[in-house]
Amino acid sequence: MGVTPYELIKSKRDGLEVAPAQLSDFIAAYTRGDVPDYQMSALLMAIYFRGFTAPELGGWTRAMLNSGEVMDLSAIPGRKVDKHSTGGVGDKVSLSLAPLAAACGVPVPMISGRGLGHTGGTLDKLESIPGFRVDLSIEDYRRLVRDVGMCLIGQTSWLAPADKKLYALRDVTATVDCIPLIASSIMSKKLAEGIDALVLDVKVGSGAFMKTVENARTLARTMIGIGREMGRDVLALITDMEQPLGNTVGNSLEVIEAVEMLKGRGPEDYREVTLALTAEMLVAGHVAATPEEARRKLQAVIDDGSAVARFQQIIEAQGGDPKAIEDYSRLPTAKHVHEVKAPQGGFISAIDTEGVGLAGVTLGAGRERTDSVIDPAVGFTLLVKEGAKVEAGQPIVRIHHNGGPAVEAVEARLLKAYRIEEAPPKQRPLIIERITSES
Amino acid sequence: MGVTPYELIKSKRDGLEVAPAQLSDFIAAYTRGDVPDYQMSALLMAIYFRGFTAPELGGWTRAMLNSGEVMDLSAIPGRKVDKHSTGGVGDKVSLSLAPLAAACGVPVPMISGRGLGHTGGTLDKLESIPGFRVDLSIEDYRRLVRDVGMCLIGQTSWLAPADKKLYALRDVTATVDCIPLIASSIMSKKLAEGIDALVLDVKVGSGAFMKTVENARTLARTMIGIGREMGRDVLALITDMEQPLGNTVGNSLEVIEAVEMLKGRGPEDYREVTLALTAEMLVAGHVAATPEEARRKLQAVIDDGSAVARFQQIIEAQGGDPKAIEDYSRLPTAKHVHEVKAPQGGFISAIDTEGVGLAGVTLGAGRERTDSVIDPAVGFTLLVKEGAKVEAGQPIVRIHHNGGPAVEAVEARLLKAYRIEEAPPKQRPLIIERITSES
Repeated sequence: MGVTPYELIKSKRDGLEVAPAQLSDFIAAYTRGDVPDYQMSALLMAIYFRGFTAPELGGWTRAMLNSGEVMDLSAIPGRKVDKHSTGGVGDKVSLSLAPLAAACGVPVPMISGRGLGHTGGTLDKLESIPGFRVDLSIEDYRRLVRDVGMCLIGQTSWLAPADKKLYALRDVTATVDCIPLIASSIMSKKLAEGIDALVLDVKVGSGAFMKTVENARTLARTMIGIGREMGRDVLALITDMEQPLGNTVGNSLEVIEAVEMLKGRGPEDYREVTLALTAEMLVAGHVAATPEEARRKLQAVIDDGSAVARFQQIIEAQGGDPKAIEDYSRLPTAKHVHEVKAPQGGFISAIDTEGVGLAGVTLGAGRERTDSVIDPAVGFTLLVKEGAKVEAGQPIVRIHHNGGPAVEAVEARLLKAYRIEEAPPKQRPLIIERITSES
Repeated sequence: MGVTPYELIKSKRDGLEVAPAQLSDFIAAYTRGDVPDYQMSALLMAIYFRGFTAPELGGWTRAMLNSGEVMDLSAIPGRKVDKHSTGGVGDKVSLSLAPLAAACGVPVPMISGRGLGHTGGTLDKLESIPGFRVDLSIEDYRRLVRDVGMCLIGQTSWLAPADKKLYALRDVTATVDCIPLIASSIMSKKLAEGIDALVLDVKVGSGAFMKTVENARTLARTMIGIGREMGRDVLALITDMEQPLGNTVGNSLEVIEAVEMLKGRGPEDYREVTLALTAEMLVAGHVAATPEEARRKLQAVIDDGSAVARFQQIIEAQGGDPKAIEDYSRLPTAKHVHEVKAPQGGFISAIDTEGVGLAGVTLGAGRERTDSVIDPAVGFTLLVKEGAKVEAGQPIVRIHHNGGPAVEAVEARLLKAYRIEEAPPKQRPLIIERITSES
């Protein structure tokens, strides 16, 4: 590979610039098994300390991308656009965004992940719809993007296998929380989808992986830089995750909220984040010249019912029960509802969102480990959110559960997550920053 | 082990202080095979960037030491003292230092290494004496220290096996040139010898691993710090390696020079470095109160012949030909001598000592790789050294060789290593600094 693995590790360790092709070769050799784990983990730790230049990161990501199949959707008319979220609590944006963009003429080839830890996953939400299948073949994936204008599938073995191998190694060598490695992992999987452009939702706050705007901005810029190196349009919105998005946390509850949003209803914060991101997709997809024009088109497909019809269409195409869109009782429903009451009066001044997500994991709505089994019916309805004035004893959260001793632990955890104070909290913007390739 | 390998790596990565016992447990688990190479290499790279506190380094070194047998020489009267050199070109100090110290009553249990790259190794020099064996049993080792007052053996499998395993991993993950790891590797092996005190010869210059006094000082202090953590007296001299030590490079040539020195002859620089280091050993061994008193004792054992007799005695005890001390023709002798002539007149202003060492490797006097075979007879006699005035065409180096096409390449390399200028170079001290536990 021109340089030996040893020389490459040493150069990176010493902060010297490494040729992108050398990084590509290293990744390829690692994926083949020609570079052992112990050299890769030394390199990963050196990357943790030294970071990557833009060309280095491009070479690294390109090699991860090329370790598997890269979809070619060029035969399908229109610019294919996807969105990626860095993850949060109550983040059901993809469920409404994909049908909205597709209804406006932007093909959306979307590959999603499962929930882990305090964050939920789009696949889990979709699978709460009876019959819905996310494990489609490459052929079905391509056909649905062409015929329905969208497809919602899970990560498969043909997609960036280097990333899968690398992630497993990072997970046991304390090299997960490293922005260039996070960015290349995300981007290699997204660019394998066959997209022309990507809109990023980089979440920041107590329920996000990025706890500061500074870190979120760095991650956004890093991913945009990779897009530039790879010749794809990438744009990011930094959005608020200091409290859960919308009023529901839990898989079937979130599906209902998403359908409601597509019907023109649903909570304002979720609606606003969805529309802002989808508008960017319409502009990136060249079906609207400006975000404002995009907003008008989006409102039209909500008003005329074509957005919700598109969601119904993809549910049916992927084996799910399309009637669930009209009759929510066809979705898994928890047997019991327990109301959590405000221990005192005042204003909801803060919600520890990671705490809410972890309460959801305890309840069974999320996963502690990748092999945990989840209950699609359980979750929370958040009756009040930040800034709301509450009386002592007023219900603040509904816990949807199926019995079992966890409910008390869940309630205690939720009560700990809600802070109630005398003064109302300062308002925060929902869309914190818009970062483009030019900015 | 209290913390998981993951947590330990993460703590070190983040610059947090780690409990010494956790590092000890990690090393022990690694040596047993319970911690995989890929976690150790990630930790090593984190150590490369973050370093060690003194207690951490103590815990790390203690675990390496305890991974193998630790000699107990307490039944042998007197304080056992050894010397360690960080390596150089023409460094035959151990050959004369050990008999000198032993003749003065300081038992010297010395475990040495082989040459690699541009530096020579004491074992290779000893093995150029016909019959000399360095692979003695633990029992023979202990017996010779008791009966002859010294023993000169090679590293064996019972000695700090963790270091051996770790060094092999460092060698392929670019974590060799890291001062705390170098220091712990040296000290774990030296402390396993069963010594009470250690004198370090930290070499600095173009022929040394440490190229700057600053780095040499850091390494010396780090090793002294480990000694303090482990309750052993350690002292260091930083000595000059900007030019080869003495006038010979090559195994049997260096043995002859060492014997000459023990007979009261030999080049001044080699003599001075040897006496300075041995004097420190006498003080550390409590057979002299001051280095000045030690110098007088050393002169006495040279003058009365007991130093060279002691060398003869250990040669015989370890299976070597004792007559080689009187009759150098019993040592391997090269068939040919080729003289390298000064290309111009002037002063020898600098000698690229690593270059001279590598020329020796090309000639066959040293090893390119650990499995290279060396020729004990070949080497160089340096006819002039730094500061000498030479005429154009005057012989400056004699190459002792056994034929073969390498001689021309060796000559070219030597000519490149010698710089001749009009003005004489500035003089440098031979002993640059003395560093003790108090300084």
